[in-house]
Amino acid sequence: MDAEYLRNLLNQVRDGGIAIDDALNVIKDLPFQDMGFAKVDNHRKLRNGYPEVIYCPGKTTFQIQSIVHELMKYDSNILASRADKSVYEAILQVAPNCTYHEAARMVVINRKIEITGIGTIAVVTAGTADIPVAEEAAVTCEVFGNKVDRIYDVGVAGIHRLFAQLDRLREANVLIVVAGMEGALVSVVGGLVDRPVVAVPTSVGYGSSFNGLSALLTMLNSCASGVGVVNIDNGFGAGYLASNINKERVAK
Amino acid sequence: MDAEYLRNLLNQVRDGGIAIDDALNVIKDLPFQDMGFAKVDNHRKLRNGYPEVIYCPGKTTFQIQSIVHELMKYDSNILASRADKSVYEAILQVAPNCTYHEAARMVVINRKIEITGIGTIAVVTAGTADIPVAEEAAVTCEVFGNKVDRIYDVGVAGIHRLFAQLDRLREANVLIVVAGMEGALVSVVGGLVDRPVVAVPTSVGYGSSFNGLSALLTMLNSCASGVGVVNIDNGFGAGYLASNINKERVAK
Amino acid sequence: MDAEYLRNLLNQVRDGGIAIDDALNVIKDLPFQDMGFAKVDNHRKLRNGYPEVIYCPGKTTFQIQSIVHELMKYDSNILASRADKSVYEAILQVAPNCTYHEAARMVVINRKIEITGIGTIAVVTAGTADIPVAEEAAVTCEVFGNKVDRIYDVGVAGIHRLFAQLDRLREANVLIVVAGMEGALVSVVGGLVDRPVVAVPTSVGYGSSFNGLSALLTMLNSCASGVGVVNIDNGFGAGYLASNINKERVAK
Amino acid sequence: MDAEYLRNLLNQVRDGGIAIDDALNVIKDLPFQDMGFAKVDNHRKLRNGYPEVIYCPGKTTFQIQSIVHELMKYDSNILASRADKSVYEAILQVAPNCTYHEAARMVVINRKIEITGIGTIAVVTAGTADIPVAEEAAVTCEVFGNKVDRIYDVGVAGIHRLFAQLDRLREANVLIVVAGMEGALVSVVGGLVDRPVVAVPTSVGYGSSFNGLSALLTMLNSCASGVGVVNIDNGFGAGYLASNINKERVAK
Amino acid sequence: MDAEYLRNLLNQVRDGGIAIDDALNVIKDLPFQDMGFAKVDNHRKLRNGYPEVIYCPGKTTFQIQSIVHELMKYDSNILASRADKSVYEAILQVAPNCTYHEAARMVVINRKIEITGIGTIAVVTAGTADIPVAEEAAVTCEVFGNKVDRIYDVGVAGIHRLFAQLDRLREANVLIVVAGMEGALVSVVGGLVDRPVVAVPTSVGYGSSFNGLSALLTMLNSCASGVGVVNIDNGFGAGYLASNINKERVAK
Amino acid sequence: MDAEYLRNLLNQVRDGGIAIDDALNVIKDLPFQDMGFAKVDNHRKLRNGYPEVIYCPGKTTFQIQSIVHELMKYDSNILASRADKSVYEAILQVAPNCTYHEAARMVVINRKIEITGIGTIAVVTAGTADIPVAEEAAVTCEVFGNKVDRIYDVGVAGIHRLFAQLDRLREANVLIVVAGMEGALVSVVGGLVDRPVVAVPTSVGYGSSFNGLSALLTMLNSCASGVGVVNIDNGFGAGYLASNINKERVAK
Amino acid sequence: MDAEYLRNLLNQVRDGGIAIDDALNVIKDLPFQDMGFAKVDNHRKLRNGYPEVIYCPGKTTFQIQSIVHELMKYDSNILASRADKSVYEAILQVAPNCTYHEAARMVVINRKIEITGIGTIAVVTAGTADIPVAEEAAVTCEVFGNKVDRIYDVGVAGIHRLFAQLDRLREANVLIVVAGMEGALVSVVGGLVDRPVVAVPTSVGYGSSFNGLSALLTMLNSCASGVGVVNIDNGFGAGYLASNINKERVAK
Amino acid sequence: MDAEYLRNLLNQVRDGGIAIDDALNVIKDLPFQDMGFAKVDNHRKLRNGYPEVIYCPGKTTFQIQSIVHELMKYDSNILASRADKSVYEAILQVAPNCTYHEAARMVVINRKIEITGIGTIAVVTAGTADIPVAEEAAVTCEVFGNKVDRIYDVGVAGIHRLFAQLDRLREANVLIVVAGMEGALVSVVGGLVDRPVVAVPTSVGYGSSFNGLSALLTMLNSCASGVGVVNIDNGFGAGYLASNINKERVAK
Repeated sequence: MDAEYLRNLLNQVRDGGIAIDDALNVIKDLPFQDMGFAKVDNHRKLRNGYPEVIYCPGKTTFQIQSIVHELMKYDSNILASRADKSVYEAILQVAPNCTYHEAARMVVINRKIEITGIGTIAVVTAGTADIPVAEEAAVTCEVFGNKVDRIYDVGVAGIHRLFAQLDRLREANVLIVVAGMEGALVSVVGGLVDRPVVAVPTSVGYGSSFNGLSALLTMLNSCASGVGVVNIDNGFGAGYLASNINKERVAK
Repeated sequence: MDAEYLRNLLNQVRDGGIAIDDALNVIKDLPFQDMGFAKVDNHRKLRNGYPEVIYCPGKTTFQIQSIVHELMKYDSNILASRADKSVYEAILQVAPNCTYHEAARMVVINRKIEITGIGTIAVVTAGTADIPVAEEAAVTCEVFGNKVDRIYDVGVAGIHRLFAQLDRLREANVLIVVAGMEGALVSVVGGLVDRPVVAVPTSVGYGSSFNGLSALLTMLNSCASGVGVVNIDNGFGAGYLASNINKERVAK
Repeated sequence: MDAEYLRNLLNQVRDGGIAIDDALNVIKDLPFQDMGFAKVDNHRKLRNGYPEVIYCPGKTTFQIQSIVHELMKYDSNILASRADKSVYEAILQVAPNCTYHEAARMVVINRKIEITGIGTIAVVTAGTADIPVAEEAAVTCEVFGNKVDRIYDVGVAGIHRLFAQLDRLREANVLIVVAGMEGALVSVVGGLVDRPVVAVPTSVGYGSSFNGLSALLTMLNSCASGVGVVNIDNGFGAGYLASNINKERVAK
Repeated sequence: MDAEYLRNLLNQVRDGGIAIDDALNVIKDLPFQDMGFAKVDNHRKLRNGYPEVIYCPGKTTFQIQSIVHELMKYDSNILASRADKSVYEAILQVAPNCTYHEAARMVVINRKIEITGIGTIAVVTAGTADIPVAEEAAVTCEVFGNKVDRIYDVGVAGIHRLFAQLDRLREANVLIVVAGMEGALVSVVGGLVDRPVVAVPTSVGYGSSFNGLSALLTMLNSCASGVGVVNIDNGFGAGYLASNINKERVAK
Repeated sequence: MDAEYLRNLLNQVRDGGIAIDDALNVIKDLPFQDMGFAKVDNHRKLRNGYPEVIYCPGKTTFQIQSIVHELMKYDSNILASRADKSVYEAILQVAPNCTYHEAARMVVINRKIEITGIGTIAVVTAGTADIPVAEEAAVTCEVFGNKVDRIYDVGVAGIHRLFAQLDRLREANVLIVVAGMEGALVSVVGGLVDRPVVAVPTSVGYGSSFNGLSALLTMLNSCASGVGVVNIDNGFGAGYLASNINKERVAK
Repeated sequence: MDAEYLRNLLNQVRDGGIAIDDALNVIKDLPFQDMGFAKVDNHRKLRNGYPEVIYCPGKTTFQIQSIVHELMKYDSNILASRADKSVYEAILQVAPNCTYHEAARMVVINRKIEITGIGTIAVVTAGTADIPVAEEAAVTCEVFGNKVDRIYDVGVAGIHRLFAQLDRLREANVLIVVAGMEGALVSVVGGLVDRPVVAVPTSVGYGSSFNGLSALLTMLNSCASGVGVVNIDNGFGAGYLASNINKERVAK
Repeated sequence: MDAEYLRNLLNQVRDGGIAIDDALNVIKDLPFQDMGFAKVDNHRKLRNGYPEVIYCPGKTTFQIQSIVHELMKYDSNILASRADKSVYEAILQVAPNCTYHEAARMVVINRKIEITGIGTIAVVTAGTADIPVAEEAAVTCEVFGNKVDRIYDVGVAGIHRLFAQLDRLREANVLIVVAGMEGALVSVVGGLVDRPVVAVPTSVGYGSSFNGLSALLTMLNSCASGVGVVNIDNGFGAGYLASNINKERVAK
Repeated sequence: MDAEYLRNLLNQVRDGGIAIDDALNVIKDLPFQDMGFAKVDNHRKLRNGYPEVIYCPGKTTFQIQSIVHELMKYDSNILASRADKSVYEAILQVAPNCTYHEAARMVVINRKIEITGIGTIAVVTAGTADIPVAEEAAVTCEVFGNKVDRIYDVGVAGIHRLFAQLDRLREANVLIVVAGMEGALVSVVGGLVDRPVVAVPTSVGYGSSFNGLSALLTMLNSCASGVGVVNIDNGFGAGYLASNINKERVAK
């Protein structure tokens, strides 16, 4: 539905290079493959150089296998997120050379890897329990072509641990800050750097953390500016946004 | 209803020093003065050396004046909280030597002041807009016999401003930390000192601060231990708790 | 508290170029000016080339005037946000050449303006009622040195209005999407571009919009990846984050 | 309690065709069968030509079997919803020719099927994980006598997938739109068609989707008019409402 | 963006009847008029025979006047909702023959009226305080070409008042039920009729009605099937949905 | 719709004492007077010996006056609740001998008063600010024929004030306990008496009292059994329920 | 702490009938038995003629057995609530003649039963799934000496089922109405009777029923007066309150 | 980052006692041990004489064992909280002389114990089910060097049980009050003592207790002053805060 693309198509229609009903069919059928239960978008990769992503929860094992199988026809890199061990084993049957990142709960099928991000993405956690979400973000960044610097367990209650990493924090082009409980780390980091900060609240905590609500509100209300927040435990979304920020922008 | 007190009364009953029905009346009538709309507790002062406190919202001007008038019979120090200017002017009519703390919205009628707290109470705010709540806490501490150190506008987004006050923070015997928005200051201060921290969330902020809910949840979930939280904007409660902590404990 | 800065100071200490207590004072006093009710951070501008920002709610007129007065000594550009007309008139007394952006409720004191952002920032709204928040974002972007493209009233209920702007959407280096009610515009825009999207929920709506909560949740749960969310009505925060993303990154 | 019915009964009373106490008994006992734990409404079918429906959660296996057994005496079509496999097997014992729709978690006992709906009902989902709720709606529509067109996995993040189905969307007489996460699909579809849209939020999502609350609020606040919302995951309710809309209205 | 429309355009392009860039411009510019702050959709009326609607809150008086002025060029009927008296007076300046429905807070500019709905729409309220929202729904239905039957103040606490209206309830082709407080009326009405029910929770109530949340939840959880819910106080949305349901469906 | 009443009517129908259509009309028209905006239930008084009640918010002055005027034809006692001074003055025009209870915000038109309750109803408040809600309850009880004992300002923070009233608490046949803030008074009173307790949370408080939610939850979760809770600030409802409990039960 | 009791004790003290320290010990030790983990209140039974109640969740099996064992020394009737089968079996070891009410999840140890309630208590449910909570209420009423009339599955969606029970509803002295989902039954029943109604919301439902919150809010906001609400699923509390209402009041 | 410490370091730098890069390394590396997944803060013990604490949830068994192993090198006392039996058994492998407090779910490795608290800490519960949280608080207090007085099952519904403990309550220097359900105990205890009260809401309860929210709100809104609240079920945090309050303050 790109204006460029539409102009070309109109040119062909005018020149008789394509029949009208064919043109209509092209518009309708080209950009995805209809599998009934899913419409696989196998051209997104071509568009932005990113791998195809499958969010696994709510899909049956058979559906996941079928989607992977379909995508592999197009030589795509593939990232399956929120995949527990049994999902990994199912994918293994249709993609034998896939690898499993257990902490991140991600299956990766990477044909070729190249670093295209313009700087380093720092992934920072407040505590040890935040690491699974951080790994989801970090693996995402890496699969999307970025160098990652992991800085874990530097919560503000022992703030000297954070300051000892000040150079690494300031070296990063984008920062992903992952924190549960009260999520205060985002405000402190946000005040120490002048690069974009992607904040990920986690469901780590109990009682009035209300499964991540406390950290989410903290991050949305951060007194430090320059912070963009994603959903609770959404390591993938944070990695995707950070990757987009870290991409070279070709001037138009 | 003190055990000591009851024992004495029983002694008198046994010794015939008091009639049984009189004893019953003493128990019922002594500890407060019934004014119909209010039961004024004029002996609390004797019990713990603290002033009488009137929380003004929801009381009519006449009710406030009557309570002040009643309390002044007993030579009490009096603190009227959440008092806007018109309340102050009404109290002035029955207590001409009262003073008004405008930022704190408090009227104070102090016959005699003496510092009895064993250390200094630091009152710390994240921003300038938190000052009214902080002043409510600070004035409370002062009226309850404590030395106060005000450290304002040291929020974590510019954390060097906080660290410049590290000595003052560590010198305090009790700290009251007042913050709205995301309230992260509590966790950082809590990690820097080893004295009790009383946390006061404020309704400063907008949108998803939800009138102080965000700061409240942050403080309840603080990764720094040693923090006790009071209600949103409850400067008085924080000052009262801090005063209690800062009181000399007579061994029993 | 920059490592670089600390190293230099230590060098001077070693070389006797500075006395130890002076060094301590430098560390404490240099980065801000203590005004009692506020600690003005007058060196931030030097650090990142950005103007000083004053968030006005909760500050008295006198406090705002004093802060402006202080900042003007350092030749800073200044941005006062959430400023109603009376605040503007108060600032006018201490900064006669300030200008007022009424829709954005912002006062700007700009000594020199230069475009430093590497691309255009598109500011997109779902409806006409979202424009004030959008203007807060747009003015922020401009004052922070960016070219802005305003695309207003393109909500998804008449999606052809949005598609007619597809070229402008795809030309932007960063997009700020501002929407109230159900906030669905973010997901649609997020699926059409491959640049970072900053999402701003607004309090536009009624009933179960719960003052912006509905739009906020929509944006956090967006099925489109690459979206960072800021607080409800936080046009400034969105502009600041977008500006940071749109800044040239000097390689270290 | 129908006025018509009451008039007839009164006529019989007047004409001596029925004794007064018998008339009272008719009013009380006729319209349902009291089974102690349930009052089975075996005449509803006659009233509106619809099957009897059993909502299974909270009922014991024995209760479900007994209700089915009772209803089968009246030659009703029967629909048991939210039935897991063990419930299906229990019903099989009393209704051997029942069929199980696994994805929809529904057991259907249909003696005769006829299409009575005046148009097609389109059932549309945002993602693959929304299919079980969509199937509950679709099976309901079919059992209630409607032709259904299933259009699955056309969420707005890849909006070209949706537009490719525009003809099918516009051909439908009623549309059921099923979406979790942020639920934005409803607003886009609502803006593309001019027929009634029944919106079903699902609990698909995580974190701040709060088990469907996010999608629910989105749909209630939709900027597209002409949308009626049902409870989270309530595929049956959506199917019932859509069937009622799709019914021929006999003029009175 | 209609497939039909696109096919025609493609035919013209092929036949040389229109230049390619013109065709692109047609697609972009035709369906709305860009006024900067608003994109006025002046062809929606043609599409579905409905008036143009202006939702007034958040729009300046000048913006509302400009939109009305623009729309009147196309001979549209116009409905301005949530319009207080001052908005009405402003519209009067550009549309002298407009009429004001005070209870409904709606301004109507109707060039020609015709009843096109296939049956009557009953608008039912639980109490007297729900009437303003009900009037918004009723006026909407009327302006959209429907006959309306108003049945007010028949809440379930005095259920005989409701039953006395049973004939009118059952005569309606669509029912709009408007209720605040606990909103129970919807479930009772839903169980008495077999036509679609549009439920409108209102903010009538206090305390734990939480501004309409209680009634909203009641309606979403109604044990009566066949109910579609709209936003709190959204009389317009209910009227629009009911009008769509009550429209003759031309078979395709 | 009373079975007794229906039997009589059927008898008359059989005996030819009443025509069928007349019988239908009787059923429909008798129990209320339709005023368009309100259906006035002028026979409720006859049924249970209680006055007619008008809940004023959301009704126009004219509507309130009309309802009062209508009710006065039937010699009813009338109670108008949530009536501010201007409503009182409006009622005065149609009911010159009405009286205004300012604290309770109630207008009472009482033709004859008689005490019919079988015991005393104690109305107890935690604080002075709870008195308006308590007065609404107390006046309701009195108008409904009960003797009331007001016990105000006996909150649990000074529990000796409560114990001094133990005899009065235990003398009551029903207790209404009115409390805001944390509402703990209900649990303590509930544990001290063995008569029914009606609990009324009030919106007295601030911050995390969330306008009465805190007190409401406290009362619903009370560890003392025998407590029934009404809506926040619902003094009338509490008075009505207490009156019903305090009524002589005629054995059937 | 009874005034009567205190007077007697004081009389004995005066008469030398009891030593002062003994009197103090009596006050402290008499009214309960301290078991360390529990303070068993073995005189409550004497006070109000009710059985002792043990709420089982959160207590270990050993603790429950010990409490039962202690209570049985005093010849009390005992009611253990929220007891699953394993708890029943544990109690069986120390109280061999106990009986288990499975639907109500209650263990009853009743030495002697006598009906003391002055009328019948009707227990009414909206659906079949509400029966377990209703049984908890009904068994409580019975153990506390009341006659119970169970009226189950009469929800408002098929309101003729409810009206068929009108006589039984109106015969009851107190009504307990148990309903989940939207809980509308309470308002309808409340409008049909003039006796006290105890409303019990249940967690029956899904999605936006939010585990009973929807029914709870409905009941608190009921437009029918005379309703007292207890906690979600709190059948015991409802039974206790209804029993208290149904008790003969001895005049003082 | 202590000012004292910094001054010494600067002295050494000036005197050439330490190289600049070494000084930088000291600042960075000294205060914790980086284990990748955790930064162990092995000097905190030295700073405040407290044991090291490991919060177990979210950490893998291997991580917990490694942290314990690391900490034991420094002769620290260690407290592992929220440790279920399997965690205990894992720690046993690396710390054979550790002990397990089952009710408190805590593992303690104590090399030397000494009572340093200046008074007794009373730990008070409302019910038996609150004991696990109370034990977490009590064990914490003991491990941190305090004498503890356990006063369990004294909830306000049987308030004589509480008053019997008045002497013990008033003897304590600090009180920890642990309560679920409605949490009213805090307000009553807070009114009876004049020492600091630490309030711990627990998740004990059901329905509208909302997993501890009810008790939390009660405690935050307590009408008794002098109360500091910690997170729901946060026994450790309460014990830590109480220990800090009970510590001798060395005057500076």
